[in-house]
Amino acid sequence: MIKVGVLGATGYAGIETVRLLAGHKEAEIVRIVSHSYEGTKISDLYPNLKGICDIECTGLDVDDIAENCDVVFTALPHGASKEVIPALYNKGLYVIDLSGDFRYDDPAVYEKWYGQPHSDPELLEKAVYGLCELYRDKIKGARLIGNPGCYTTCSIMGLYPIVNSGYADNHSIIIDAKSGVTGAGRGLNLPNMFCECTETMKAYKIATHRHTSEIEQELSHAAGEDIILSFTPHLAPMKRGIFATCYINLKEEKSAEELVELYRNFYKDEKFVRVYDAGTLPELKHINGSNYVGIGIAVDKRLKRAIIISCIDNLVKGAAGQAVQNMNIMFGFPEDTGLDLVPNYL
Amino acid sequence: MIKVGVLGATGYAGIETVRLLAGHKEAEIVRIVSHSYEGTKISDLYPNLKGICDIECTGLDVDDIAENCDVVFTALPHGASKEVIPALYNKGLYVIDLSGDFRYDDPAVYEKWYGQPHSDPELLEKAVYGLCELYRDKIKGARLIGNPGCYTTCSIMGLYPIVNSGYADNHSIIIDAKSGVTGAGRGLNLPNMFCECTETMKAYKIATHRHTSEIEQELSHAAGEDIILSFTPHLAPMKRGIFATCYINLKEEKSAEELVELYRNFYKDEKFVRVYDAGTLPELKHINGSNYVGIGIAVDKRLKRAIIISCIDNLVKGAAGQAVQNMNIMFGFPEDTGLDLVPNYL
Amino acid sequence: MIKVGVLGATGYAGIETVRLLAGHKEAEIVRIVSHSYEGTKISDLYPNLKGICDIECTGLDVDDIAENCDVVFTALPHGASKEVIPALYNKGLYVIDLSGDFRYDDPAVYEKWYGQPHSDPELLEKAVYGLCELYRDKIKGARLIGNPGCYTTCSIMGLYPIVNSGYADNHSIIIDAKSGVTGAGRGLNLPNMFCECTETMKAYKIATHRHTSEIEQELSHAAGEDIILSFTPHLAPMKRGIFATCYINLKEEKSAEELVELYRNFYKDEKFVRVYDAGTLPELKHINGSNYVGIGIAVDKRLKRAIIISCIDNLVKGAAGQAVQNMNIMFGFPEDTGLDLVPNYL
Amino acid sequence: MIKVGVLGATGYAGIETVRLLAGHKEAEIVRIVSHSYEGTKISDLYPNLKGICDIECTGLDVDDIAENCDVVFTALPHGASKEVIPALYNKGLYVIDLSGDFRYDDPAVYEKWYGQPHSDPELLEKAVYGLCELYRDKIKGARLIGNPGCYTTCSIMGLYPIVNSGYADNHSIIIDAKSGVTGAGRGLNLPNMFCECTETMKAYKIATHRHTSEIEQELSHAAGEDIILSFTPHLAPMKRGIFATCYINLKEEKSAEELVELYRNFYKDEKFVRVYDAGTLPELKHINGSNYVGIGIAVDKRLKRAIIISCIDNLVKGAAGQAVQNMNIMFGFPEDTGLDLVPNYL
Repeated sequence: MIKVGVLGATGYAGIETVRLLAGHKEAEIVRIVSHSYEGTKISDLYPNLKGICDIECTGLDVDDIAENCDVVFTALPHGASKEVIPALYNKGLYVIDLSGDFRYDDPAVYEKWYGQPHSDPELLEKAVYGLCELYRDKIKGARLIGNPGCYTTCSIMGLYPIVNSGYADNHSIIIDAKSGVTGAGRGLNLPNMFCECTETMKAYKIATHRHTSEIEQELSHAAGEDIILSFTPHLAPMKRGIFATCYINLKEEKSAEELVELYRNFYKDEKFVRVYDAGTLPELKHINGSNYVGIGIAVDKRLKRAIIISCIDNLVKGAAGQAVQNMNIMFGFPEDTGLDLVPNYL
Repeated sequence: MIKVGVLGATGYAGIETVRLLAGHKEAEIVRIVSHSYEGTKISDLYPNLKGICDIECTGLDVDDIAENCDVVFTALPHGASKEVIPALYNKGLYVIDLSGDFRYDDPAVYEKWYGQPHSDPELLEKAVYGLCELYRDKIKGARLIGNPGCYTTCSIMGLYPIVNSGYADNHSIIIDAKSGVTGAGRGLNLPNMFCECTETMKAYKIATHRHTSEIEQELSHAAGEDIILSFTPHLAPMKRGIFATCYINLKEEKSAEELVELYRNFYKDEKFVRVYDAGTLPELKHINGSNYVGIGIAVDKRLKRAIIISCIDNLVKGAAGQAVQNMNIMFGFPEDTGLDLVPNYL
Repeated sequence: MIKVGVLGATGYAGIETVRLLAGHKEAEIVRIVSHSYEGTKISDLYPNLKGICDIECTGLDVDDIAENCDVVFTALPHGASKEVIPALYNKGLYVIDLSGDFRYDDPAVYEKWYGQPHSDPELLEKAVYGLCELYRDKIKGARLIGNPGCYTTCSIMGLYPIVNSGYADNHSIIIDAKSGVTGAGRGLNLPNMFCECTETMKAYKIATHRHTSEIEQELSHAAGEDIILSFTPHLAPMKRGIFATCYINLKEEKSAEELVELYRNFYKDEKFVRVYDAGTLPELKHINGSNYVGIGIAVDKRLKRAIIISCIDNLVKGAAGQAVQNMNIMFGFPEDTGLDLVPNYL
Repeated sequence: MIKVGVLGATGYAGIETVRLLAGHKEAEIVRIVSHSYEGTKISDLYPNLKGICDIECTGLDVDDIAENCDVVFTALPHGASKEVIPALYNKGLYVIDLSGDFRYDDPAVYEKWYGQPHSDPELLEKAVYGLCELYRDKIKGARLIGNPGCYTTCSIMGLYPIVNSGYADNHSIIIDAKSGVTGAGRGLNLPNMFCECTETMKAYKIATHRHTSEIEQELSHAAGEDIILSFTPHLAPMKRGIFATCYINLKEEKSAEELVELYRNFYKDEKFVRVYDAGTLPELKHINGSNYVGIGIAVDKRLKRAIIISCIDNLVKGAAGQAVQNMNIMFGFPEDTGLDLVPNYL
């Protein structure tokens, strides 16, 4: 049984981490850190947890955490993470960071998209990008994980195999992504009030969303060359889910069946990846509430273009679930420990 | 490991039973029976189950079920259950029936509210009403369970302690209940189409809903005399949940704190019952997706009236979860086996 | 063409007033007052209004308003109204106040439920309670209207005829009301964030909601004696609508048909009241987006109890629509001018 | 005052036509035709219309319609329209058809996408494609209108100016469109049940949706050459709205401001088109419930790609509203008669 601390637990990614760890048989939450709610029981803030997790939130005390925890999940706002994480890391803790601060190969890319220099480029270099299906081996030996973003995980997993295959024009990628509102976090914000975002839809941050840079970084690895791409995020009136519709032009004619075969080979033995039969497509209700990625592939023969649907639960595979999956890999637990969640069709 | 069959698995109560059993470590689903979908994999109908439960639906073959199963869950439409259950029961199977057919003490009550005579009054007599917190001892020795309805479970659990206490005028009960749309089942039905029931609300079957009779039966036991009451069901634009607002006049002045104390004593040691501190109230998001019952109590001193909020997930504690809880009791498993579900706040 | 000013136009009741006035052929909006958004075009805040109403918000300048407007709608938070209204009133303006400040016969009742003494009891005395169907004649000669609350309008209109009839026990009233989220206003508030209030339901302010006092005031008039009653508000996951389920015990046996007849007589010639045939019931989608009140009546013969369903759009008949109806009456326009809105079934 | 008949009025496009005509001061509905509901009052099916439109549905009687109506709106399923319309047309009626049957220049295109030969190619030739902003002059003299589809109107209006400008690579178009559930009509259909489509999202008919052919037909006119394109429809959990995210590669560098200028010139004097300032984008709540088209333009400089957001209410500008707009043009009424609808932000 390992001892776990969660920082920033009262936000949506943080509380989902608590929810998943509450059902994890190899890990025990011993510290929940929240500035705003120091002294309050987490189950008073989230009464769904009553009797399940009644730990009291504490302020941040690095020494106390170092003494009592083996691993820390940091679900802090971008920018806040990198103030705290070096201290935790230097105390010898394992750290899984859900922010954007430790996801980059190159601090210059971080600076470009986050608008400020990275505060600890040396530590950034030690961090491993925690997309489990791609970097499992590196994660095994890591002590600091930059847990991927939600749009990112969904987009990369949907495109990696074809980009890597050489079948497609990797400079033609367009990702049109739709997110549930939990993706915007728990911060008070007029556009995320019920009456402002139900029964409507919008696009936002066209051509400027930060996750673009993460997707480009990883798909450039897949392609073996630098690629840039279009990424358009949308907000849809639902709580959970990322639904990415990905477009890529084929260099040669390929059927949906051939591409499905390609993807199934690529994700062979991956428990959390479901590649759909040609002619069928994933929907959010097939995967919501779980750590699964659903991938479906169609080909528009007239245009020699593949359309790839990828979907995940933004709070699970797009945040807390993948974070737990990373923990499982780091500590040698079966990778699905605490993640055997049946998706909520209803 | 016991062997389980599910009849009528493709409806919402049935598929929730499958979902819960898929995560139950002492039970294994070996038969899924569906007339309409014979030959189809359950995971083709509900792709959320892919890789989790891929059993093929079969037609009804009582001998085959008797040979291969220890226990059967019947989630058939009311009326259909009572054709099938005697045969299953006579083969020696344990049967947990989710319909209304085996919930009554008195076949005359069934006939009055269901509009037809009960087809097997003898078997009805052997059935135990499966409201676990009230009838645990009888359930232990039973082989046929009439699993309570969703409105019913919520209302009875919210009112039983006060009705039983003698503090209140048991002839003054009004239950104003609100249900999510899964309560209406999966049958094609215009009023349950998305565009017909989102962003609206309605009441229905005022003073005539069948669950009234079940609630009256049980609360009469609690009162030690025959009582009748008002029950008004509403449909609200959400998938899951029963939210019952219960009104009862007090015979003497009681504070909310005193009533909370009464309820906590009554439900002492009940894992699935959460009685809220006076001044706080349950919401559906505190219990949805789980087997919990949330109960909150307010007192209107001006009117000497208690207002009791009771809420459950209609598909879990109101159907499949309680059915599994019944199975656990019948077979001597820890009562929460397969039911350690963290409610979905998000 | 009369000139209109709207104060507090950027909240939900205010902006609905703007929306309705934009389509009113006898009135022209000439001032929109907003502290927070002085200098901003209303159509930049609410882009649905682009090209329809592009007026710039101004700060509050009583002289300017007095000079340029004939009538002012004040949709300010409770408490704020009563600071501003005396000044406007004294300038000779017609004032329709959407807050709770001018709705009471007795300042002591205001003080009891709003927790502070009324600041201008003399002016309160001059105000007319703007429930149009009940006080049309007084409204005609008034210069200050206390426009009724949303829960209030719905509940009073649903109960007035029966309470007034003498058929019922007026001390047995229970109102179980469900509101859409616009009822909570536009203020930033965690519980009204999309992810906190979709797919869930809650009750709140049981036995303490301020609208209780307004309902009691008016139904006491109907009864000819002081009555107190139970009022329980709930929040449901939808934008608009108040759905009130009202319970009242009958002193003598009455059929639903007889009560429908009673209601139809009472509301004879009322354009905005729809009394449903016995056996049918209103739903929110029958009236949402319009100024209609839908009333349906059922009788539980077993219990000699009438159950009356009353529903309105909280922003229209429950706020802005009734405010415009009041204006129409005050200025002698046909009462439905600008209010010929077809409800949004879809 | 012209006399109007509506065929297929009980579906969603039909009933929206009724709703709009009910508020049209130059037109009077005199016949509502419905096979399934002959003899039923339309306001019994749609109680929102009580007191507003209480006409009884009749069976189809071409002579009766010819005698009593000037113009007929046909909102029948695709295929059904073309059986009825020739008869109505030959009686001298003006016909506005909301199905896909009379939208094509070339019957071969119809046959290819609808899977059957067109039954009346001669009449097809006489039909005018009713996209009002593009074909106003032809509509003026027409007696048969093929009213455009919802996805179609939204996509064409979003792309026409740029495709026509010569600035872009017209062979690079990708349209990623999201629709509310009313777009699927009122037919009983499991995937459109509330519990099946709320809180989820899906793509469907990738590369095969019929509206693709309509969009290609019109954008080919804009381009002056045959173009084919990608069109991907999605279903989102909301009632109304089409939200199209359109991608097109620029041949030369253009700023968003320059493109906004281009669009504003193109749609100069068009009352129902709102081209947003660069840096701002339309959302469905800006236009829902109205006949407006909201168009916003972003440019991804890194990729030399324009991303154009176009949105409409599928039932209004995408069906009934445009149909009424066509009628207004045909009969010489001001084009916005009956269409001065303020969009429902809330």
